[in-house]
Formats: sequence, structure tokens, C-alpha cells
Amino acid sequence: MKDFYELSKLVRYYILLSTTRAGSGHPTTCLSAVELMVSLLFGGFFHFDADNPDNPNNDRLIFSKGHAAPLLYSLWTVAGRITEEELTTLRKFGSPLEGHPVRAFPYAEAATGSLGQGLSIGVGMAINGKYIDRLPYRVFVLLGDSEMAEGSVWEAVQLASYYKLDNLIGIIDVNRLGQRGETMYGWDLSAYERRVSSFGWKTICIDGHNFNEIFKAYEEALKNNSPSMIIAKTVKGKGVSFLEDREGRHGVALSEAEFEEALKELGEIKRLTASVKKPDSLKPEPQPLKINEFTKRYNIGEMVATRRAYGEALVKLFPEFSDIVVLDAEVSNSTYAEIFKKHYPERFFECFVAEQNMVGMAVGLALRGKIPFVSTFAAFLTRAFDHIRMAQYSDANIKFVGSHAGVSIGQDGPSQMGLEDIAMMRSILNSVVVYPSDAVSTEKLVREAAKHKGIVYIRTTRSATPVIYNYDEEFPIGGSKVIKRSDKDLCTVIAAGITLHEALKAYEELKKRGIFIRVIDLYSVKPLDVETLKEALSETKAIITVEDHYPAGGIGEAVKSEVGSDRVYSLACRKTPKSGTPEELLDYEEISAKAIVECINKLSKLL
Amino acid sequence: MKDFYELSKLVRYYILLSTTRAGSGHPTTCLSAVELMVSLLFGGFFHFDADNPDNPNNDRLIFSKGHAAPLLYSLWTVAGRITEEELTTLRKFGSPLEGHPVRAFPYAEAATGSLGQGLSIGVGMAINGKYIDRLPYRVFVLLGDSEMAEGSVWEAVQLASYYKLDNLIGIIDVNRLGQRGETMYGWDLSAYERRVSSFGWKTICIDGHNFNEIFKAYEEALKNNSPSMIIAKTVKGKGVSFLEDREGRHGVALSEAEFEEALKELGEIKRLTASVKKPDSLKPEPQPLKINEFTKRYNIGEMVATRRAYGEALVKLFPEFSDIVVLDAEVSNSTYAEIFKKHYPERFFECFVAEQNMVGMAVGLALRGKIPFVSTFAAFLTRAFDHIRMAQYSDANIKFVGSHAGVSIGQDGPSQMGLEDIAMMRSILNSVVVYPSDAVSTEKLVREAAKHKGIVYIRTTRSATPVIYNYDEEFPIGGSKVIKRSDKDLCTVIAAGITLHEALKAYEELKKRGIFIRVIDLYSVKPLDVETLKEALSETKAIITVEDHYPAGGIGEAVKSEVGSDRVYSLACRKTPKSGTPEELLDYEEISAKAIVECINKLSKLL
Repeated sequence: MKDFYELSKLVRYYILLSTTRAGSGHPTTCLSAVELMVSLLFGGFFHFDADNPDNPNNDRLIFSKGHAAPLLYSLWTVAGRITEEELTTLRKFGSPLEGHPVRAFPYAEAATGSLGQGLSIGVGMAINGKYIDRLPYRVFVLLGDSEMAEGSVWEAVQLASYYKLDNLIGIIDVNRLGQRGETMYGWDLSAYERRVSSFGWKTICIDGHNFNEIFKAYEEALKNNSPSMIIAKTVKGKGVSFLEDREGRHGVALSEAEFEEALKELGEIKRLTASVKKPDSLKPEPQPLKINEFTKRYNIGEMVATRRAYGEALVKLFPEFSDIVVLDAEVSNSTYAEIFKKHYPERFFECFVAEQNMVGMAVGLALRGKIPFVSTFAAFLTRAFDHIRMAQYSDANIKFVGSHAGVSIGQDGPSQMGLEDIAMMRSILNSVVVYPSDAVSTEKLVREAAKHKGIVYIRTTRSATPVIYNYDEEFPIGGSKVIKRSDKDLCTVIAAGITLHEALKAYEELKKRGIFIRVIDLYSVKPLDVETLKEALSETKAIITVEDHYPAGGIGEAVKSEVGSDRVYSLACRKTPKSGTPEELLDYEEISAKAIVECINKLSKLL
Repeated sequence: MKDFYELSKLVRYYILLSTTRAGSGHPTTCLSAVELMVSLLFGGFFHFDADNPDNPNNDRLIFSKGHAAPLLYSLWTVAGRITEEELTTLRKFGSPLEGHPVRAFPYAEAATGSLGQGLSIGVGMAINGKYIDRLPYRVFVLLGDSEMAEGSVWEAVQLASYYKLDNLIGIIDVNRLGQRGETMYGWDLSAYERRVSSFGWKTICIDGHNFNEIFKAYEEALKNNSPSMIIAKTVKGKGVSFLEDREGRHGVALSEAEFEEALKELGEIKRLTASVKKPDSLKPEPQPLKINEFTKRYNIGEMVATRRAYGEALVKLFPEFSDIVVLDAEVSNSTYAEIFKKHYPERFFECFVAEQNMVGMAVGLALRGKIPFVSTFAAFLTRAFDHIRMAQYSDANIKFVGSHAGVSIGQDGPSQMGLEDIAMMRSILNSVVVYPSDAVSTEKLVREAAKHKGIVYIRTTRSATPVIYNYDEEFPIGGSKVIKRSDKDLCTVIAAGITLHEALKAYEELKKRGIFIRVIDLYSVKPLDVETLKEALSETKAIITVEDHYPAGGIGEAVKSEVGSDRVYSLACRKTPKSGTPEELLDYEEISAKAIVECINKLSKLL
């Protein structure tokens, strides 16, 4: 173990060096997990092809406690993949060695830093290994003790056990101290052991600085037939007397004087290098799936809920996009993800009512090359906003599908209504947001989403709506459809989803009175078809946007922001909804055909 | 028990009657919990002054499984508080008997319907009873088995145990079936027992249709000195043979024919009434707190981080607003909620790294008359978006405080940066969003927030900024401050928080070149001071908004939406941030003084 002792000393040196040079960071957080990680990477337990971080046979290591990033970088410095000079670019602008891991660093599996998300990502990767690619790689997740308070961790613990993920190994670095003081359980390892084992995990409690215990723990975990959690008692700041188990030293770099002092304590540093064992090279062996030809076409006028068309589209697309994996949170009979499940049960994963873990799993699956479609009620996607936010920093290729959008769901009431979902999904920097109005546009947009690399949000509607497009119509991201236009259009109504059908009713109503309006289907809410919007503004007296969503961050604001003008008016949900029929609620919120007609009548007097 | 048998039959009748008349709802979900709730309300265990639902001595009953609302309404019909006629307005527009409970129904403690939130609300109410009002009332929470998959439930379980809430009693209605099929554990009560007890709760497993077992369970739970969970095996659809334990009957009302069939099975219905035992009348006995005079004033030019001013403001305000309670998620030394904790430890509750439960607790505290200030990093408030969304339907009076907003936090990187928080908080229908730029405006806005009834979001900044306002300046919600103005202003720069200081630097820079700009502090992001914005637009050639936030749903869109014009330009974060110094990142995102000057130079050529 002598070498491991020396390697640990070197890793500690690198941690202190990099954080001191950076002038910020979390050295004490790193120091507690040194022996745990040195043993894992250099003790032959972790199999990884350092020349090819994306090798499908590589074991996966996720730093759920992302603030221990300097430890991760120091390990790969010892492994000869980062020079000491590069290491000291930690936290500097332009360096891949950021304060918390991001994908720019090739040995970071995922972007972490919002606590309690790493285990869910690990569950997704483990599911991919066990059930999809069928490869024997292992997934290791380093957890902090503070983050065990996050409910999402328990969602992951529960699902890992449900799916019998014997290829998943968690390591809790129980260093007793959180950011502002002691954690809920301090050094009471048994508290973690009782809780984790109650969910069906194998638990192994050890001294996290004792190599013999650590090695035994990994050996045991690796031959276990259930998910395993190594619960390690450690000392925060371990190895530097004036940092050990001290409050007030979280996220504080050492001063130069402290650094010198610490080096004295560490003593002579040997510049050793160590290598990580390579994995066997095996090919993914995905189960051969019986491909179901599903060739249903939709005819104009046919009544089909877009949520149903979503489920059918997945089945149609799968033969072409065989990386599709579908996740749903116990509502697949409402989102109609169940249609895909019936055809391809091996590519559908029930996530139960645990949306945060579902999204974390999707990140893990996406990072292993899959295309996850993640569905639940639009309202309940808000449950996972932090996970969706973090997914963007992993450049995760995920499609989110929110059903039951808006007040048009009716009697169930506001708790079930997605009324902030467009605002939420638009706020993600590089997201795409689409909102189909009929079965044809849904199918085409699901296909566009599958083709697009990145985060896409598809908003679907509960009630059946008539098919208005020919089956051969195309719906590119960033486009729109001018459905009604004439050279005497008074103004333009821009709608999407359910409100498009209200706009079309309004069109017919106004036409009877000799008033013509332009009607645009804004199926691509982000990015917007700015050209068409500006054209409409120049050719008609006003634009009226109509949306089944609260005003802030919705379609109205998006349009107004692009076509700056005082001739753009917005109809949106401006009152707290109640239970009622869809019709009553569309009228109540003044987003119905009636409200559109009234708005245009008012305007026609002003214009 | 004869009466309870008859009462249960009557409640079943009311459930079937109301949902059948409504034509929608969740009858089978209600039927499984009938004996559990009839025993609780009419067995003398639940003490409630039905004439005064807000009596502070009332026990509290939260239907976390909100889709069982018809059961709640049926119970109060039996209690004579709803007529049969009123009961049949279930789910009809304008009726307080909505599809899921809302506060319009006086016997609904909180709005529920997004699963897994009720126990957190109960924790907040139990904390209020035990530690703040010091009243012996009990808090009962009816949970569904499906929602036990939500991590937030485990966050609540964990914290209830940490705070030794012996006044909290949960009841899990284990009816085996979720919406689309069997739950993770089906009827395995021991799975729930092992998990819940591992967190330090007393668990009691019973047959949920056996009155003897139910009564014994409540007796036991009520004399317990820890939180208790009654885990009841029940049958979904109990009492109607063709509904019992059937898949595909979730959220489906009976047809008229099925209703007739069900009535035959129920047999003769006796129109009994039953009453709920009244509580003793006691006065709240809040601990007498030593009031700390805290009279720090801020002077122009003094460098103070707004997050620190937030903590200091709480201490200053407490003597005037003694209902203030402060919650923080393990980062009180970063949000500076710790300043309040040091002065009033009895009114500070550490929630550890579990943001969802923290917000649910805040709802419970708010519904018991407190003014919770809830703080964490702005980025991590996204973790609780669904809980914040639901809080609005409980009309909860909560103040959310997000620190470390934007890229200006620097080296820690994007995972720690609040860049979607304004979009999120603006999307809440009736929310107020304020964003102070210095210590004086922070203190004044914290006071405005405490005065305002409803959801307020306060965005604070990590780094210290100079005090720019006199201590006697006032900051009403909906206002703004024109800081720089002249009769030769070329254009207007609208900023808030950190970017206001960049705007002021830009002002000085441009002034040297003889260019004058108007600078407006948009401290009230929602509602907006439209008048001042329109004035600026009419008096200057253009408006430039500058924000440390992503574009969608942010300040730029808010302003553009209000002052529709093609002369409004927005500077916002349009690239994925990295680690770096605050200065480097403000430049990189083009929201720095330099970027503002460049933008104005470009414009001055165009205008």
C-alpha cells in the first residue's frame, strides 16, 4: 500500500496547489475523498481507456459532489493526462478545468454541481449498460454526505433497486461537515446504512482513509448482485492538520502562507504516475427488437389528441431512430407514451412518480448515446427544472414532452395545468420549444426533435383536436404556417396548439361579418419564424397572440420581443384558473374564439 | 362500530354521487381511504372547530393525495357543512369543490394535486405548532402509495424526524394501484415500513378497512413521541365489486348505469350526520424572544453585498414583523440568512440540502399565519419550481430569496449561477419580482416584501457593490429609479442589480466623450414601472436593457413586452458561461460597462 500512500500524498499536493493558485475552490471537500478515489482509479477496480474516454466499455465515474472537481483533475494529473501547468489553470477563464466539472473536460462524465443529481445520472448509465447496450461496464458515483438530504438521491436509490442495477456502485464521502456546519447525521454511518439498505441496496461501512478497508469494500461491491453503497467515514480536510474537521473551511482556498505550511506537513512529494486499467473491448449487444411497422396516417378533419399522436409518432420513428429510449413518470396512459411501451417494451422505462430522477436518468442515457424522450404532465416537468437546467451543461440530447398543457384540460383544476412550462423551457439557453396543434404536425415535430441534437420541448394537448394539415406537410424547427391569409387581412392572429383551433373558429366567425384575419400557426415557439411575423406586422394592422399559458415568458412575450411594436397584443391566461369545462375556462381566461373576436372588434375601432 | 359502518357507506354514496354527476374525478382513489378518514374525523381523534376553520387550535388534515378531494368533500357533507346539492357542484365552474382541493373550500388546508407535497406542508404546520405558536394541535397527512416515490416525501420524512415532530401523523393509503398500473411495492407494507422507520419514524401497519385496527392505530400514533406513519393496506375502489382492485379505473367516473349498479351493492343508505370533536381553546404561547436592536445604516459608497444586506434587513425588520420565520437550505453562510439566525435562532429553521421540502414547509408555515423568508442560491430555487407553482394556489404568503445570481458569481461556473430564476419567478401569475442593486434598496425591498401579501422573489448578488442610495430613499413595489437623466440623453440604459453598476460605469465613460445617457434602476422587475419606461422611450432614441440572466423570460423581454417598440435592445447572457472572474464573464456575455458603451456607440451611428 506504500505506493497508494505516496499517490494520495501527491494527489493532495495537486489539490492544494491547484486551488491555492486559483484562489478559490473546495480543497477540504477534495481531501476527504483522496484515498477512496486513488484506490478506485489506481487499484485496478476502475476500468477505463484513457485514450478514448468515449469507449463504450469504459466504467463510468460521476462526481455527484461536483465541488470536488479539483480531486478529479488531480487524479488525471497523476494518470498523466493533465500536466501540472494545465492543472494550475483551474477555474481560469477558458480552461476546461472549471470550478465544477463540465463536459469540456474529457474525463468528466457529466456536468455536476447542483447536488443530488449524480446518482440519477448513474442510474441512467447503468440502465444503458445492463438493459440496452448490454455491456459489463460499472458505474461509480461519488456522493457527498450533505447531498444525501436531497430527495432526488432517494428517488435514484429506489429506482436503482427496482431495476436491480448490480452494475451501480455509490460511494458516500461522510466527512461530517456541510457548507455551514454539521450534516443531519454527522458521522453516524449507521443512519445512512439503515436508510440505504432499507431500499434494498447492499451497504458497506468503512474507514474512508484505510486502504485495506477501501480495497475490500470495492472487491465486495464488484461481486455483489444488487446496487452497492460504500459508506465511508472520512475527515474533511484530511492530511492538513489545520484543515482537518474544521468548520468555516468549506469552499475556502488556502493562503500562500497556509499552502507553505501544508506542504511542510505533507513532506516530500514523489512525482509518481499511475495508470488506470483498460477495459476489455466488447461490442454493444443490444437485444434484437422486433420492428413493428406502424403506418397509420391522419386525415384532415379526423379528431386526434396531439398527446396520442406523440405516442404513435414514437412507434413510427423507432425503426429510423433506434437510439430512442422512452421514460415516463407513472402517467404513460395519459401522455400516451404507453403506445410506444406496447410496441417496444425493452426501450421503455417506467420511472414512477419521481420526475427529478427521471430527468437525471435521461441525462445518463443521453450521455451514453441514446435519445431519451421524457414525458409527464407539462405541469409536473417543473418538478425537475433544476435537473433540466443542469442537463444543458452536459450538452444532453433530451426531448421533453409535456402533456395536459393549459387550462384546456378542464375539470382537474390548476394543479394539473401546465401554465408556466413554456416560460421554463424557453429559459434554457439553447433549447427548442415546439407546440403542435394537430396529429400531423405532432408526428412531424417529434421527428424534427429526434433529428435535432440538444434539448427540445414538445408541448401536447389533452383534448382531441381536428387534423388540419395534409400528411405530407413538413414542420421544420424555426418555421411557422400561415394558415389563413388574404390581401385584405385586417390583423394577424398568432396561435399554437389548442388556441390555433380557437383562432380558426374566430376566423370563420369574422369572415361571416366580412372581416378577414391572417392566422399563423406558431408551432415553433423557440426559435421563432421572425421573418413571417414581421411580414404579418407590416401587412396587417396588428398582431394578436393567443396562448393557453400565463403571460410571463410565454408566446406573447416571445413574439413581442422579436417584433418590437406597440401593435402586438397578447391574449393569455391572466386569472387563476378553476375547475370547469375546457370551453368555460378558455372563455374565462379570454383565450377562446369568442375572446379573439371581441378583441378584434375592439381593435377594429381603434385601428 | 355499526355507526362507522353506516357512515362509511354514506360517504361512499356521496363519493359516487358527486363524481358520477361531475362525469369525471377519481372515485376509486377515494373509496380506498373511506374507513381511514371516517374514523379520523368522527372517531374523536381529529379535533376541529368546524365553525371556525382558522381556529389556531384546530388539528390540521392535509390531503396530499389531492385527487381524493371528493372524499374530503363527502366527509364534510356528512359533517353537515355541505349540502348534497352543493356536493353535486363538484368540478363545476365556480364551485369551491374543485377537482383537486383549493383554499376556496374552507376545510381544505392547502391546495394539493401535485403529488408528494402534502407531507412537507404538514411539516411546516407541525413546526409552527411545536416551536412557534406552541399549541398542542396535531397535523394529519393522507398520502397515496404512488406519491411515496417522490423524493420530496423523503425530504419531509427526514426533516420531521430531525425536528422530532411528534405532532405529525402520516397515513399511507396503500391501495396498490397507481394511475397506470401497480406501484413499485404493490401491497408490500413492509417495504414502506422498513423505509419510513429507517428515518426514525414510528410505523404502524394495519388493514385500512378494519375499524378496530384503525382506531388502535390512531390511539397509538397520538401518544407517540416521534412522528408516526400509519401504513394501511387498502383496496382501490373498495365497496363496489366491479371497481375493487381493478386496473384502468383510475380517474374514471362511473357511467349512470354503473352508478345504479353500485347503489344496489351499497344497499340502503342512511342519511346520518356526524360531528367532529372541537379542540380546547388555548392561546398561542410563542416563546418570548429577546429583541435585538440592530440599527446599522449604510453610507453612500460603502461596499456591501446585497445578500449581506438581506440578512441584516431581516434582523432589523423582525421587531416590526414578528411573524417572520427564516428557512435556508444549508447555505445560510452564503445567503447570509445566518445573520438572522444568530439574532433569532428560535425563528430560523435549517432545512439542509432539500429545497423542495423547504418550500413545502414554507407553505405550511404561511398557512399558519407566518411570513416565511426562504433562501438559497437562485440557481437552486429551480429545484422547487413545482412547489413554488403550487404555493400560489394555496395563496401562500412566502418570500423567496435567491442569492448568487448570474455569471457575476465568477469562478464556480454555470451550475451555481442563477440564470433562469427571473423567468421562473415571473411566470408565477401573481408574483412580485424585485432585484436590488445596493444595501439600501435591499433593506427597503425586504421590508416591502414583508408588507406585501403574496409571493415575492428577491434576487441578490454575491459580490459587494457600492451603496448608491441615501438611507431614506424608498422603493415601492412597481417603481423604478431614474438615476441619471439630462435633457440631452441619447438613449436609456435599464439595468438592475449587478448590471446597474456596469451601466453607471458606462455613463461615466460616455460622459467623458460628451455622450449622455439616461440610467434607470429597474429594481421592480414585476410589476414594471411602465410609465417611466414609456417616458424614457419617448424622450430618448432607444432603450437598452442589461441583465445578468438568460434572455428568455428576463428583464429584456419584460420591458419589450410592456413598451412595444423596435427601439428597445437587450443585452443578456447569450453564451453558455464558464468559470472565470466576474469581470471576464460580464465582458464575455457582453453585459459589462464595456459592452454597454460599445452597444451605444453602434446605436449612435444608426440612430
